[in-house]
Amino acid sequence: MAKVMSSFVMHGIGKVGFMEKPIPRPGPNDAIIRTTVALICTSDTHTVAGAIGDRQGLTLGHEAVGIIHELGDVAAASGRFQLGQRVAVSAITPCFACENCQRGYSSQCGGLLGGWKFANIKDGSFAEYFHVNNAIANLAPIPDGLTDEQAAYCCDMLSTGFVASEHANIPMGGSVAIFSQGPVGMMATVGARLRGAGLIIGVESMPNRITLARKFGCDVIVDFTKEDPIEAILKLTGGVGVDSAIEALGSAQTFAACVKVTRPGGTISNIGYHGDGDSVPIPREAWGVGMSDKVIRTALCPGGSERMRRLMRLIETGRVDPLPLTTHRFTFPEIEEAFRMMQSKEDGMIKPLISFA
Amino acid sequence: MAKVMSSFVMHGIGKVGFMEKPIPRPGPNDAIIRTTVALICTSDTHTVAGAIGDRQGLTLGHEAVGIIHELGDVAAASGRFQLGQRVAVSAITPCFACENCQRGYSSQCGGLLGGWKFANIKDGSFAEYFHVNNAIANLAPIPDGLTDEQAAYCCDMLSTGFVASEHANIPMGGSVAIFSQGPVGMMATVGARLRGAGLIIGVESMPNRITLARKFGCDVIVDFTKEDPIEAILKLTGGVGVDSAIEALGSAQTFAACVKVTRPGGTISNIGYHGDGDSVPIPREAWGVGMSDKVIRTALCPGGSERMRRLMRLIETGRVDPLPLTTHRFTFPEIEEAFRMMQSKEDGMIKPLISFA
Amino acid sequence: MAKVMSSFVMHGIGKVGFMEKPIPRPGPNDAIIRTTVALICTSDTHTVAGAIGDRQGLTLGHEAVGIIHELGDVAAASGRFQLGQRVAVSAITPCFACENCQRGYSSQCGGLLGGWKFANIKDGSFAEYFHVNNAIANLAPIPDGLTDEQAAYCCDMLSTGFVASEHANIPMGGSVAIFSQGPVGMMATVGARLRGAGLIIGVESMPNRITLARKFGCDVIVDFTKEDPIEAILKLTGGVGVDSAIEALGSAQTFAACVKVTRPGGTISNIGYHGDGDSVPIPREAWGVGMSDKVIRTALCPGGSERMRRLMRLIETGRVDPLPLTTHRFTFPEIEEAFRMMQSKEDGMIKPLISFA
Amino acid sequence: MAKVMSSFVMHGIGKVGFMEKPIPRPGPNDAIIRTTVALICTSDTHTVAGAIGDRQGLTLGHEAVGIIHELGDVAAASGRFQLGQRVAVSAITPCFACENCQRGYSSQCGGLLGGWKFANIKDGSFAEYFHVNNAIANLAPIPDGLTDEQAAYCCDMLSTGFVASEHANIPMGGSVAIFSQGPVGMMATVGARLRGAGLIIGVESMPNRITLARKFGCDVIVDFTKEDPIEAILKLTGGVGVDSAIEALGSAQTFAACVKVTRPGGTISNIGYHGDGDSVPIPREAWGVGMSDKVIRTALCPGGSERMRRLMRLIETGRVDPLPLTTHRFTFPEIEEAFRMMQSKEDGMIKPLISFA
Repeated sequence: MAKVMSSFVMHGIGKVGFMEKPIPRPGPNDAIIRTTVALICTSDTHTVAGAIGDRQGLTLGHEAVGIIHELGDVAAASGRFQLGQRVAVSAITPCFACENCQRGYSSQCGGLLGGWKFANIKDGSFAEYFHVNNAIANLAPIPDGLTDEQAAYCCDMLSTGFVASEHANIPMGGSVAIFSQGPVGMMATVGARLRGAGLIIGVESMPNRITLARKFGCDVIVDFTKEDPIEAILKLTGGVGVDSAIEALGSAQTFAACVKVTRPGGTISNIGYHGDGDSVPIPREAWGVGMSDKVIRTALCPGGSERMRRLMRLIETGRVDPLPLTTHRFTFPEIEEAFRMMQSKEDGMIKPLISFA
Repeated sequence: MAKVMSSFVMHGIGKVGFMEKPIPRPGPNDAIIRTTVALICTSDTHTVAGAIGDRQGLTLGHEAVGIIHELGDVAAASGRFQLGQRVAVSAITPCFACENCQRGYSSQCGGLLGGWKFANIKDGSFAEYFHVNNAIANLAPIPDGLTDEQAAYCCDMLSTGFVASEHANIPMGGSVAIFSQGPVGMMATVGARLRGAGLIIGVESMPNRITLARKFGCDVIVDFTKEDPIEAILKLTGGVGVDSAIEALGSAQTFAACVKVTRPGGTISNIGYHGDGDSVPIPREAWGVGMSDKVIRTALCPGGSERMRRLMRLIETGRVDPLPLTTHRFTFPEIEEAFRMMQSKEDGMIKPLISFA
Repeated sequence: MAKVMSSFVMHGIGKVGFMEKPIPRPGPNDAIIRTTVALICTSDTHTVAGAIGDRQGLTLGHEAVGIIHELGDVAAASGRFQLGQRVAVSAITPCFACENCQRGYSSQCGGLLGGWKFANIKDGSFAEYFHVNNAIANLAPIPDGLTDEQAAYCCDMLSTGFVASEHANIPMGGSVAIFSQGPVGMMATVGARLRGAGLIIGVESMPNRITLARKFGCDVIVDFTKEDPIEAILKLTGGVGVDSAIEALGSAQTFAACVKVTRPGGTISNIGYHGDGDSVPIPREAWGVGMSDKVIRTALCPGGSERMRRLMRLIETGRVDPLPLTTHRFTFPEIEEAFRMMQSKEDGMIKPLISFA
Repeated sequence: MAKVMSSFVMHGIGKVGFMEKPIPRPGPNDAIIRTTVALICTSDTHTVAGAIGDRQGLTLGHEAVGIIHELGDVAAASGRFQLGQRVAVSAITPCFACENCQRGYSSQCGGLLGGWKFANIKDGSFAEYFHVNNAIANLAPIPDGLTDEQAAYCCDMLSTGFVASEHANIPMGGSVAIFSQGPVGMMATVGARLRGAGLIIGVESMPNRITLARKFGCDVIVDFTKEDPIEAILKLTGGVGVDSAIEALGSAQTFAACVKVTRPGGTISNIGYHGDGDSVPIPREAWGVGMSDKVIRTALCPGGSERMRRLMRLIETGRVDPLPLTTHRFTFPEIEEAFRMMQSKEDGMIKPLISFA
C-alpha cells in the first residue's frame, strides 16, 4: 500500500501547488477517508489570499466525500462503519464533547469558529486521503440513491445556505430578501423555500446567477446595478419591509441594507464572511435606535453526521437538486487550473467539481 | 335595502334548515360582510350532531369570504377598509385585546377555545350576511390575484393544517408522519413540505384521498387497512421513528400511534378534534415513562388578518393550490343537500363549495 | 366638574413649563385616568433635548398610575373596569390589533417604535388627567397589596429592565454582564436574577449606583474608571466571556464591549437608546467575522395589561422591591424642579417620584 | 494498589448487598473515579423493586462525586484533567456523539432514555470506584468553594428539578403549580424561582416536606389531604389556572390534575417517573379536546459537564443551598441500612448522604 499521497496545498499567501505528504493515520476516535469527489469553495481562495493569515504547506479543501480507508480503534469498535463505505463529511467537524458543543454551538467547538478545522487548523480534503476527527459524530454514510457529487454539496453549500434560512425565523408565508445569489445565497434561497417563505427576493446582478437563482426559487430578482435594492424591496413589500433578510455576501454595505429592509421584529440572518475593516456598522435609525425588536443572527456552517443525513435526505426525496451549481469539472491533477479560475470566477464559474481517480 | 336575509341554521341536535333573520348591524369595532363564497367543514356536521351541545336557530358556517357591507364607526374611521372591498375572515376571530390574546394564544381568546365564535357563540357565515367582531384585526383584504374560492380555503383549511406543521417542530429535512389525509391532514402535508420536511408519510385508506395526498406532497402513504401503521412507519425510518407526528383525525387510537412512532425528543402535534371519552391516553412506555423528551402540542386554527395575509400570499406565489380539495359545488339555496352529503361523505366528497348570488 | 387641567409640557427643544389643557375625553375604546403618581424618566429629558425632534405643547411623561375617571362606551360595556378603580398603564400602549401587534411585536404597533405613544405622538401623563387608547388591553388594575408608587415602577423600569434579561437568553446558572447600572440597568440586574443567572457582573462607576446595584443583585461590579471592563469580564469568566451581555446605556462603545465580552453562541441584548451617529458598529473580529453564532437582540419596553399584571405580581410576592430607586419626592406643582434635577442627575438622583393631590 | 473494591449491588429484585468487584479500568475516552460522597435516590429503590427488570450483581447509585483515579489515553491527552482532581459526574452520561446527542437530546443518547447508564446498563457509583464513559464531556471539576456534598446534589436533584422548571416555559412573573414536594419537586421549586415565577403553589401533605418546601420557595402550599388541589389552585389563580404545572411525582392522577389546572396555552412539564399502567390519560375536556394550545413536555435529568458547571455555580454564588435536603448521614459500610430507610422513607428521610473513607 502506498504510504504517500498527493495534496494540493497553500505554500504561503498567494501561493498554491501540489505536495507529497504521508497518508494520515487515525487516532482512536478518528477515520481516514480516501477522497472521491471534492468541490472548491470561494473561501479556499480567501484563505490563500491571506484571510486567516499565512499557512505553509496546509492542504486546502473542506467540501469532499470519499470512502472509509481506515478507522481508529474506538470508531471501528462502535460497529457503525465499514471500511470501503461511502461517506460525506461536513466542512465543520466538531468534537461534540467540549463546552461549546454541549451548549449546542458545535460550530464554535473549543472556541470562536473552532469547529472549522479542515484547511484551517489541520489539513483539508484536497488530497488523495484526508483525516476526520471524532469519526462517530462526523462520518455520514451516503445513501445509495445519492451520487458522490450530490453528497458533496451537503458538506458546506446546503448546510451553510440552509442554516441562513433556519436562523432567519421566516414566518409561514413570510417575505425574505437574500442579498447575493452566489452558491451559498442560492442554497439560502432553496432553504427559504423549504422554510415556507411566501415571497423570496434575490439581490444579484450577474446574468448567469440571476437565471439560476430564479430556478432555485427566487420570486423576484432585484438587480442592484439597475435600481436601489432598498427602495426596490420596500416597494415590493408595500413599504413595510421583509420579515427576514439574509446576508450571503459578507459586505458592510449589504449588511446595512439587510437591516434597512427588515421590518420591526424581523430577523437579519448573516452567513456572509466579513473580511474587511474593524467593524460592521448597524444603521442606527433603521435599527430603531436599538429598540426595533429586530434580531441579528450569525452562523458558521453546522456540521455533524445527523445534519448531513437530513441534508442528504432532502436531495434523495427530490426537495433540492444542487447539481446545476456545478459549472465546471476537473480531475484532481487539474485542480490548480480550477483553483485559478475560482479566484477569478472567470467563464461564469460557480462551483468546480474535482474528481479523484 | 332588504332588512332580512336567509340563513342556514341548526334547529336543534340533528336538525338543520333555512331561517330568515334580520341583517346584522355592527358595533363600533365590527363589520358586516355580504357573503360570496363559503365552504362546509366537517366540524359543522359535528356541531349539528351535538358536539358542542344543543343550539336553537344558530347559523352554521365558519369558512367564508365576501365583500364589506357595513363598518362600525371605529373600524370605518381607521381608514383601512372600504365598503365593497373583498375580504376573507378566519374561522377564528379573536379580540386580540384580552389576556390570552396578549399572551399570544389568540385562539384561546377570553378562555378555552374562546376564539372560536362563528357558529359556536354567535351566528356563523352560512347566511347572506355575517357579522365580524374586531374588524381591524379580523378583516383580511383579498389580493386581486386570488379568487374568492382560493381565499376561502385560508379561513380554516390552510390555517389549521399549516399550524399543525408549524407546531410539529420539523427539523430541516426531518421526517413526519401525518395521521389521516382529510382536508386538514392534506393541508398539514402541504405545511410539512413548506417547513422543510424531508420525508412525509401519510396514513390513509380511502383511495381518492390517497391520490390527492400524494399530489399534495406525501412521499409515502401507509394504508392502515393493509398494514400496521406503527410497524410500517418504524420500518420506513430504520426503526428510529419520525421527528414529528401530526394527529389530524381526532381519535385516541391515532393519537397513541403518534406517540409510538415519534422518536425521543420529537414532537406530536395534535390538530384533531377529540370528541369521545373522558380522556385521551398517552402510551406509557413509548412516552418513555414520562422522560422521553417528547413534546405534545395542540392547536386550534389561528385567526387574524396578519396570518390570513401570509396564507393568501402562499397561494398567490404558487406555493400551494388548494382548489383540488373542492370536489362538489352548490348554490346557497342548495346548501341543505350539500350539508347532507358532507354528513355522509358520500360520492367522495372532500370539500363542497357554496356560492352566493 | 373642572373642565381644564394642569399639564407639564415641552414648549420646544430645551423648554418646559406648565400649560392648561382641557381634560381629555375618551373615544369608544379609550379611558381617561386621573393621575395619582408619576415618575420622571431620563428619556423625558432626552425628548426635551430634541431626541425625537421639536414638539410644541406636548405633555411629557409616560410612567404613571391613577384612577379611572371616564371610560369610552366599548370599554365600559366590557364590564372589566369600574370608575374610581386604581390602574397602572404601561409606558407603551399598543393597539393590539394591527399587523405588528398580531405578529407579537406590539411595541412596534403600527410601525417602528409605534407602541410608544405617550409624550411622543400624543400627550403624556404629567397632567392631572391622561388619555389611554385601547383601554381593555392597556388598563392594568393594581392589586390591593401594592402602593401606587410600586405600581408606577412597572410602567417602564421593570418592563424595560426585565425584557432585557428575557431577551438575553440566559442559561440556568449562566453568566451575564450588564453595562451601566442606571435604573433600567438595575432592573435588568433584578431581571437576570429572576431568569436564573449564576453570575451577574455590573459595569458602573458612580458610587451610589454601585451600592444599589449590589443590593439589586450584581455579584461583582466592574468600575470602568478603574479597570478595562472587557479585560475584567474576560478574566472573571476564565477567558471565555459571558453567556449574555445587556446594553443598558445606549453608547456605541458599550455596545461594542458587549459584543466583545460575549462568548460564541451568546446573546447581546440591547435596551439602551442609541441617540448618536449614523451607525452603531459591531466589532468585526469579536463578531467572528459574522459567523460566531452570537445573537444581537433589541427591545422597546413591552406594554399591555397582561404583562403589567405579572410585573405587579412580582412586587406583590416579594420577588422585587423597586422602591430603593426613588431617591427624591416632589408634588406635581414642584415637577419643574424635579425635571431640572433629572436633567443634571444632581444630588445622586436616580428616580424622582411626583405625587398628585 | 488494591485491585478489588467493595460495591453495593442489586442481587435480584428486592435483594441488595455488598459485593467485591475488580476496580474498573478505563477505555481511551473514559475515566475511573474514586468515590468520596454519594446520595441515595428514590429511583435506586424503584430499580431494586423491579422497575427496569431484574439485574444480577449490578452496582447501584448514580449521584456521586469523587476524585480522578485513572484516565484513558484520549482523556488524559486532552490536558483537561489531573489525577486527584475533584469531579462531579451527572447521573446521566451521554456520549454526545450519536444522532440523538447531536439533535440536542443527549438524555436520549443512543435511544429512549439511553443517557441513563449508571445502575441501569452499567455499574453505578455505590462503590469505592466507578467508571465514567466519555470523560471529556462528563467530568465536571468541582470549584474550590463547593463541598463534595454540595456538588453531589448537582448530579440529579438540581439537574432534574431545574429542567422541570426550564421546560415549564414560565413567563416572567407567571404562576406555577408543582405537584409533590419531594427532593426533585423542591428543586423544581427552586428552579421555578430561578426562572422568574411570580407565584409558586406546591402540592404536598407531609409536614416536614411542607416546611422545607416553603423554605425552598413555595409561596403557597396546597395540602391535598385537606382540600381538592384542582379547586384550590383554580381559586388561587382567580379561576384562570396557572401558566405552568410541574409533575414531580409520577402518578396518573397528578398528571391529570396538572392538565386541569393549567390555563390554555400553558405548559405541563413532566419530570415524574410514571411506573404504572399501560397509559397515562390526558383529561379530554381540560385538554380543550386537543385544541387548547396546552403543551406537554417531558424530560430526563440532563447530563454533561457544561450543565454541571452552571449548576455548581448557582450553589457557589448563593442562589441555592441544597444541604437542607440531607436529613441523614451514613458511611459506605452502613449503606444497607440507609437504603432500607430510603425504601420506607421512615424517620422523615429525604436524602441520605453516604460518605466514603
